[in-house]
Amino acid sequence: MKIYDWHIAPNPRRLHIYLAEKGLKIPLEEVGGEDLKLKPSYVAKYPHAMVPMLELDDGTCIGEAMAICRYFEELHPNPPLMGTDAKDKACVEMWEKRANEEGMLAASELFRNTHPAFAERGLPGSAEPIKQVPELVERARARMDRFYRKFDAQLANNEFVAGSRYTVADATTLCAVDFGKWSEMEIPTDCKCLRRWHDAVSARPSAKA
Amino acid sequence: MKIYDWHIAPNPRRLHIYLAEKGLKIPLEEVGGEDLKLKPSYVAKYPHAMVPMLELDDGTCIGEAMAICRYFEELHPNPPLMGTDAKDKACVEMWEKRANEEGMLAASELFRNTHPAFAERGLPGSAEPIKQVPELVERARARMDRFYRKFDAQLANNEFVAGSRYTVADATTLCAVDFGKWSEMEIPTDCKCLRRWHDAVSARPSAKA
Repeated sequence: MKIYDWHIAPNPRRLHIYLAEKGLKIPLEEVGGEDLKLKPSYVAKYPHAMVPMLELDDGTCIGEAMAICRYFEELHPNPPLMGTDAKDKACVEMWEKRANEEGMLAASELFRNTHPAFAERGLPGSAEPIKQVPELVERARARMDRFYRKFDAQLANNEFVAGSRYTVADATTLCAVDFGKWSEMEIPTDCKCLRRWHDAVSARPSAKA
Repeated sequence: MKIYDWHIAPNPRRLHIYLAEKGLKIPLEEVGGEDLKLKPSYVAKYPHAMVPMLELDDGTCIGEAMAICRYFEELHPNPPLMGTDAKDKACVEMWEKRANEEGMLAASELFRNTHPAFAERGLPGSAEPIKQVPELVERARARMDRFYRKFDAQLANNEFVAGSRYTVADATTLCAVDFGKWSEMEIPTDCKCLRRWHDAVSARPSAKA
């Protein structure tokens, strides 16, 4: 098996963190180009044109970071990073989804609608050009602010995003916070619980995977 | 336990379909108001301000449709609607996520940025007003078109969205296609495989749940 990777990109980073927390090493192939675009040979192979993607030995291509994590979680359940029992699994999935839709997608909306290299790539995964929408920039900044504050409140009562244990919800939240920095967004100074958590998870070896 | 519901809304519909396919009956409380807004008492209880939400007997509130499905899937594994083995679970999660991000979010973007009742609600779950962005309307229509064509191609080789078995990926895809109809989007006539699938899954009793 092999993971098609763009090492600097936020979505693949969720998977790198997951694999490091699991202690798994999977061969990687870099498919990001120096022009900040996916290599044409990769897009021809995988027209969904997203990373990461796990190719199994039987040729099955599994895209979407959390779907890839699910694959490994089923085969290597320990340490559990996607929950333990029914309630815990549901809570991890809920917080991971919030971190993705309210954090990652907001940071992506901000970045893609401002960075000059993405002038024709306002959304990921499209072969057709998608123009930037300048009206989205301030909306995305406000989305990020709501994201910080929602997660700050959750972390006031929990050591980690989905409770007392490190999970994929922490991996996605860390990637979202750090993706925001690409657009000069920082955790507000009054979000002390989110800052405490960010310092703690950033100090884990997996944060540098 | 109880599910807080807005019966006409597309996101809760994913859960209704899931429960019907499982043969599970869970008490429901309607929290959608006649003004096309969530009831203030519900938003006060659950500030994430989204539906559906499952409240467990211990008071735990589980939001996000797929997280709620995960809870029931762990307790009632048959018939499997979220995959069987590691590879199948990953493929179901991948296609469900695509149906959500490429279908549901596109249909939502189109609806929320055009319907007069949503003039201040361009995104879900925010207590602050979020103005509609007219520039998103055509972009959302193009997103829907890409969604139809991607799923049509997948259904050319598969009876159901994630393979040979009905799964949550079908539930989300059905809700996305039908949500598009709220904004007068229809499956393109040349997407014959998606139309064949839509006829088939719409005829299942769960489609009317």
